[in-house]
Parts: sequence; C-alpha cells; structure tokens
Amino acid sequence: MVEVACCQFEPIVGQKELNIARSTELILEAVKKGAQLIVLPELCNSGYVFNNREEAYALSETVPEGESVKEWERLAREKQVYIVAGINEREGSNLYNSAVLIGPDGHIGTYRKVHLWDKEKLFFEPGNKGISVFNTPIGRIGILICYDVWFPEAHRLCSIQGAEIIAVPTNWVPMPEQNENDIPMAVYLCMANAHSNGVFIAAANRIGEERGQPFLGHSVIIGPNGRPVGDIAPKNKEEIIIQSCDLTKAPHARSLSQLNHVLNDRREDLYGSLII
Amino acid sequence: MVEVACCQFEPIVGQKELNIARSTELILEAVKKGAQLIVLPELCNSGYVFNNREEAYALSETVPEGESVKEWERLAREKQVYIVAGINEREGSNLYNSAVLIGPDGHIGTYRKVHLWDKEKLFFEPGNKGISVFNTPIGRIGILICYDVWFPEAHRLCSIQGAEIIAVPTNWVPMPEQNENDIPMAVYLCMANAHSNGVFIAAANRIGEERGQPFLGHSVIIGPNGRPVGDIAPKNKEEIIIQSCDLTKAPHARSLSQLNHVLNDRREDLYGSLII
Repeated sequence: MVEVACCQFEPIVGQKELNIARSTELILEAVKKGAQLIVLPELCNSGYVFNNREEAYALSETVPEGESVKEWERLAREKQVYIVAGINEREGSNLYNSAVLIGPDGHIGTYRKVHLWDKEKLFFEPGNKGISVFNTPIGRIGILICYDVWFPEAHRLCSIQGAEIIAVPTNWVPMPEQNENDIPMAVYLCMANAHSNGVFIAAANRIGEERGQPFLGHSVIIGPNGRPVGDIAPKNKEEIIIQSCDLTKAPHARSLSQLNHVLNDRREDLYGSLII
Repeated sequence: MVEVACCQFEPIVGQKELNIARSTELILEAVKKGAQLIVLPELCNSGYVFNNREEAYALSETVPEGESVKEWERLAREKQVYIVAGINEREGSNLYNSAVLIGPDGHIGTYRKVHLWDKEKLFFEPGNKGISVFNTPIGRIGILICYDVWFPEAHRLCSIQGAEIIAVPTNWVPMPEQNENDIPMAVYLCMANAHSNGVFIAAANRIGEERGQPFLGHSVIIGPNGRPVGDIAPKNKEEIIIQSCDLTKAPHARSLSQLNHVLNDRREDLYGSLII
C-alpha cells in the first residue's frame, strides 16, 4: 500500500523562492499525514504565465543542480519519500516544461512534457526524452504533464511500459464551452484513461488566476477501475488530498473479464496505419 | 443540423422476428420525432447471450440479403433516414458481431466489431474489415461497437479518417467494482474520447437482463466538447433520446486553442514503439 498525496496550491509567477518555500511546507504537511509519494503541480517553482521568453529563461534552472531540485532532494532524503514536481528546466539554451522524480537517494529521472499547450509553444521545446516509466521500490511510476492527458497515446505508453501509477503535475485551464461549475474535462479524461489502461492516476493541479488565466483545481487520485479514490479537491482552495493506493491492483485491473485484458486485446494488426 | 436518435430497448435472445418488429416500431417512433440518423443497440436482431455456438449460428444472417437488413432498408428508403443497427452477421461459416449502416438508397456499409468482449470470443470472429468512416450526405459516420469504446485507438482511427460522429450500437454491462447506481464507465469513456478527438458520439445501449447478464441502459449522445447533449437515458427503461447535432462543429472542436489541435498535436515521432 502506498500513501499518495497531491498538493494543490497556488504558485506565484516570478516568485521562485517563495514557491519553493511553499512547496516545502506542503511536502512536510503531506509527510505528516503519512504520504510516501507526493505530487506537486506543473511549473510549481516558476509559475505558469510568462510575459515573454526572457522571463521564462530567467525562472529556469538546470536539473539536478538547480535550487528547486536540491531542496526537494533534501526533503526526500530526510523524510524518505518520493516527490514528483513540475519544474521550468533549462538545458543549454533549451527550456523544457518538465517534471522531476526524486526519491530518498536523490534525483531519479526527469520527464519533459511532449504535448505543449498554447503559449508554452513559444517558450518551451517539446519534450525530447520520450515517455518513460520509472521503477522504484514503491511502484512503477509514469509521469505526464497537463495537456499530455488529452492524448490516450501517452497513457498507453505508460501502461504498456508497466506503469502502476501515473503522476500528473498539471495546470489545468478551462476548455472551450466549459461552464463555471462543470467538473473539468481533464478529470473525465483521467478517469477514462485510468480505466482503459488499468492504472492509478494522481493529478495535482494548481489554483488561482495568473495574469488573467484561471486554473481549475480539482486535483484527483483515480483508481485503475476509473473511479476517483476519495474526494476530488475543490476548485479554488489549497488542499492536500491523500489516499492509500494498492498499486499492485493495477496490473490485475487490466483483466476486465476472464477473456479480456485491456492491453492484450489491442488490435495492433489493425491500428497499423496510425502510430501510437 | 442532423437529428440524431438512439433507441434504447430490450431485444429478447432467440426472438428474431419479435426483435425486428420492435426495431421497426422504434424507428418509426424516432422518425415521427424528426430523427434523421437512428442508432439501435448491438445484436439488436438476435439478442446477446447465446447458450452455445449453434444458437449463435441459428440467429445469424447474411448482409445485405438477410431479413433484418431488408426490413431496415425498407424503412430507410420509405422515411429517407439513416439507420445504424447491431446485427449477428454470417459470412460463409464465420460469424461477426456487426453493425450495418443503411440509408435512403439501401445498405451503405458494414462494420465488424474488432474488440470482442468475453464469450463473444467463443462465437464470433474478430472484425476483419478494419475501422471505417462512411461519408454520407448528412455527415461522416464512424461506427464502433460496445467494448471497442475501451480502446482509444478505435476512436482515433475514426477521427483521423474524418468522422464527425461515431455511432455506437452497444450492450454495455457492469465493469468490475461498479456500483448499482454509478454512471457506467462506458459513458465516461465516450465523453473522454469525444473530447480528445473532437467528435460526436451517439451510443444506443440495450436494457434488461438476459440469462443472468444485466445490461446498463444509459444511452447517450455526446458533443465534441465531451459533454452529453441533453439527458442520458435511464438505466432500465425503453427510451428514445434524440438531439439536434451540428456535425460541422466536430472538426472545429479539434482546435482547443489557436495553437492546439488534438489530432495535429499528436507526437507520432514518439509513439513509434507502439502502434495505433
């Protein structure tokens, strides 16, 4: 059983020190609640809505040398926990919208978002490291970021590589025709893909509004049967959701009947004209 | 604008004449309500739970010569409508869990279910005609059947081939860990895939219980924004749901922002190790 926590909060664009300090407080609070795997939102160290390319660069850092990863490494080591956090990553002159996975022994791996949303395309390069699953003592962890969730191919890649849980740092925003009080489509996308792939999904969204861009909260942990485990977080309030997840249930959940398995039933012979 | 109807009813296994007669009544009722595209459930002429292979064969027919298609052709011609209906199809010594598309000029095409559920694997051969989109004067129509909906690859294939609406004859059954009053996971799968692909989905489910197998109703028409258009049908009552669908909205719905398009943003370069 793994205690999975999603920390929903409001990073402030440009206030990197403050954001890292807030992430530390939340991680420690999650640890106090028993969390072993702690997911933080997308770009939680830098904020999201950059005015221009220069600002995005100024708020970036290299991995694992940068100050954010150093601080999360310190916490993960001290508290013996795993952290997945969204970060503005710089490598040479390239920026990536990334998420780092950090464990008790330090930095384990980095995922660079492959499907960029809207103006992210102006500042970030599309992820060039593929979609990976990281095998850890607490389970097999896939990572996707925000708009990746719209691509069933991304979930499939995680599941087919053995992921038991997909950690999703995110900054979900309203979709076209979405009403004020609707459950965000992103939640339904996660439910459907968790079920279609037999995998847990833990999505940590931010809240608040930044330079006119509202965010949607609704952080959620979903079981491999496609149903939320416990309550979905509110739309506009900081909150840590935490749930006990038996990750070993994921591979079993892929067998929907004695004769059906959501991965083995794929008709690769037919999908051939396309690529997932 | 196309008036789309899903006819939710209870076929009786083995009672082919009775089922065809009931389908005729429902089609005429839908026509009276203004329907132009009418979707009927999976295997709606034969019933679903066969005791053995012989029974499945005895209830099959060839397309388009068989009595079910002949009757639906008569209705489509007379009323100038399009019908998508699930049928137990025989070709030579092979059985397929198929759906026919019939229009004012007769039989347009047949889809043979490619992802077979549970004991269907004992009686039917997996579909050998791929996943097609049929271009008609009222719109581009893809067809999937029941468990196909669990495979995002199937929806992608429809959408990439230009489908504006996917008609889904279905016999949805409870999933593992699904509670009595839960919205079926299938509805969420349709919502997610409609949104991820910018496509309408019209799913006609059956109701009732057959030889111990309960079915779930909840027939639904979903817009390309992923939200149900109008009410979802009840769990256990015959009902025709009908909605006006502007199918030309589907291709537009694929652009989620000025810089994003759910099909064009696919990272085929990355998905390469797998196949959709």
